Amino acid sequence: MSSGVVCFLSDFGVADEFVGVVHGVIARIAPGVRVIDVGHGVPRGNVRAGALALLRAVQYLPDGVVLAVVDPGVGSGRRAIAAVTRRGVFVGPDNGLLAPAVAMVGGAERFVSIEDPRFRLRGGGSTFDGRDVFAPAAAVLASGEAVPEDLGPAADPDSIMPLLLPLVDASGGAVQGEVWWIDGFGNAETNVSPSDLAAIGLRPGDVVDVRVGAQVYRLPWVTGYPETAGAEGVVHVDSAGMMAIVVPGGRADEVFRLHDGLSVGFRIPVSGGGR
Amino acid sequence: MSSGVVCFLSDFGVADEFVGVVHGVIARIAPGVRVIDVGHGVPRGNVRAGALALLRAVQYLPDGVVLAVVDPGVGSGRRAIAAVTRRGVFVGPDNGLLAPAVAMVGGAERFVSIEDPRFRLRGGGSTFDGRDVFAPAAAVLASGEAVPEDLGPAADPDSIMPLLLPLVDASGGAVQGEVWWIDGFGNAETNVSPSDLAAIGLRPGDVVDVRVGAQVYRLPWVTGYPETAGAEGVVHVDSAGMMAIVVPGGRADEVFRLHDGLSVGFRIPVSGGGR
Amino acid sequence: MSSGVVCFLSDFGVADEFVGVVHGVIARIAPGVRVIDVGHGVPRGNVRAGALALLRAVQYLPDGVVLAVVDPGVGSGRRAIAAVTRRGVFVGPDNGLLAPAVAMVGGAERFVSIEDPRFRLRGGGSTFDGRDVFAPAAAVLASGEAVPEDLGPAADPDSIMPLLLPLVDASGGAVQGEVWWIDGFGNAETNVSPSDLAAIGLRPGDVVDVRVGAQVYRLPWVTGYPETAGAEGVVHVDSAGMMAIVVPGGRADEVFRLHDGLSVGFRIPVSGGGR
Repeated sequence: MSSGVVCFLSDFGVADEFVGVVHGVIARIAPGVRVIDVGHGVPRGNVRAGALALLRAVQYLPDGVVLAVVDPGVGSGRRAIAAVTRRGVFVGPDNGLLAPAVAMVGGAERFVSIEDPRFRLRGGGSTFDGRDVFAPAAAVLASGEAVPEDLGPAADPDSIMPLLLPLVDASGGAVQGEVWWIDGFGNAETNVSPSDLAAIGLRPGDVVDVRVGAQVYRLPWVTGYPETAGAEGVVHVDSAGMMAIVVPGGRADEVFRLHDGLSVGFRIPVSGGGR
Repeated sequence: MSSGVVCFLSDFGVADEFVGVVHGVIARIAPGVRVIDVGHGVPRGNVRAGALALLRAVQYLPDGVVLAVVDPGVGSGRRAIAAVTRRGVFVGPDNGLLAPAVAMVGGAERFVSIEDPRFRLRGGGSTFDGRDVFAPAAAVLASGEAVPEDLGPAADPDSIMPLLLPLVDASGGAVQGEVWWIDGFGNAETNVSPSDLAAIGLRPGDVVDVRVGAQVYRLPWVTGYPETAGAEGVVHVDSAGMMAIVVPGGRADEVFRLHDGLSVGFRIPVSGGGR
Repeated sequence: MSSGVVCFLSDFGVADEFVGVVHGVIARIAPGVRVIDVGHGVPRGNVRAGALALLRAVQYLPDGVVLAVVDPGVGSGRRAIAAVTRRGVFVGPDNGLLAPAVAMVGGAERFVSIEDPRFRLRGGGSTFDGRDVFAPAAAVLASGEAVPEDLGPAADPDSIMPLLLPLVDASGGAVQGEVWWIDGFGNAETNVSPSDLAAIGLRPGDVVDVRVGAQVYRLPWVTGYPETAGAEGVVHVDSAGMMAIVVPGGRADEVFRLHDGLSVGFRIPVSGGGR
């Protein structure tokens, strides 16, 4: 059941030694376990951004242990949890971070509250649970030295913190959503899926009115970059399967002044346009 | 022939999970393959900068598969290629990115156009070929599960996109070149080699007139930092074997207002100076 | 004695391929050796910051070889050294970088000056000793191909460069120290330990007058984040065991205008406060 791999996501960044220390702790406890860095550039303390990154990545990760730490509530008494899924055990804070990815792989069979002091480092202070609590738990699970039940008591699934993701509103012939990720290339992914647009009659190849704040942009829904020649901006289904606003060869975040959380609407052009 | 190692370079940056997803895909397909990150900080979409980074690194990498992805033309129909060399197989887009490094290791014995859908992931959209096309190809090559010919038809070497690197002009007793890399320490590497300077009679220890735009700086060509005491700036042969402009203990890019692509000239000082 | 692991810290950053080249060199020389990146975001050329990062990390790293490169004096003739400790061999420049971590693990049994050309790459120039000198030494030590004595002559311990860390001054009922690390979350670690504060009668739970420049802030010394509700700022023992100034949910560096090296004083509040 344990594959010997830990896939590790955090908001620790690359300026400090935090990520390296977690690698060190795992290597000391479980020398044979391999650690794959999913990424450590989640905006500091942004649980939603971390949860979405893990959601996008999880289907591409090997089975094993997922270790995710975006933990603004460290030291506050929030629980440390392990979620047992058919793809492996997810370890992290009980703050919603794991929830979307756990749901994506079919949900958790059961949850454990990580409490046993045998699997906890005694470091200075109580503010680096990534090192002192989560890394040791991930290490012993990945090595097979422990099963989740060894780490602490079962946790009631109803007590586990969910993550409230923004809902899409598809009333009145328009779909209202929001930007939920600006990637490093400046592309803006929304929480709107192609099927949300299909429900109001939009299809690939159509022209779409995209409302950003008080502005409305008429953008083509393209399926390949050759169609983008000369386009100021386009919408398309991005690599995670969601509708995204993109400027070919440029940065959509700058051109359209987009940012994480901004409200965005999609609709069939009111006059002219369309297919 | 396959060494079980993939050396991976990209412009994916460290803010997002792109690099981690590629690692995940390789680990799912080929659990025994090791991935070495050559670097992921290539300026976004800058094929030349990526090609030069790979060129500088390649002789220090273990034999095996090189996976390089700087791919502004993703989704446009440019080919995915594998170049078979005596040091291993290079996998990446057919946009010139691989060309200088392939030449450095002795050239390609043959090329393959990566097309077989068996080795392609079906992700959302068509904009993350690093994940869907290149990573699977690198994984099966490194594990030995496939040979290059399994990935698709042979590609005519004459059809492979070259990379046009700036030429050095050595006429009239001066060498005209350009800056082609500002490293993280602010050092400016040029495309001018020590032998280019030797051809106009300059030797280590000489003083050199370095023209940057309308300015001419008289800088010593040093071979060791002890000689740099008190120097505002120096030229030397850098760790990649090229002439570079350096400010000891400072940043040459700031002091001399240097940037990637800037024209730079070297010549024997017209009056005085020299050895 | 050699564990097959190299733990690697540097100021190379993640923009360039320097870190990847070092990994490549180690993999070419010692394919079975694993490299753990402790971190590469040390401020460029800041030996003290690198030494402190290594000091904080070292107790969490697996036994083996530590490779640390923050080396503003590269090319100047400073020695390359190996320090043999009971936790493994530390390899790096003789500029004080290794000293605090070596002391933390019990000191060095002996030192070697790395000089043997057999273990040196002949690259262009003399400015990338991480690649040409330190990586090969770390590789052969970690693989067991060489013992430290193979690398060069013994170095007199008295000749090894120490690192002068700022002293804490506890006279007059106040403790004067300084900020020696701003982490990526904006937390400010000082060189003052809880026992320094205990020596002037301060204890966890007390209110402390913290002087930063001409300003004095009255901050609670908390032991858990629940106590921080409504607090503008707090002091606490951080994850490395030192007194730190923290703004719960915010950035202390911005709120209190703190930076590396800034003088900070702690004392019992003069009027009122305290328990």
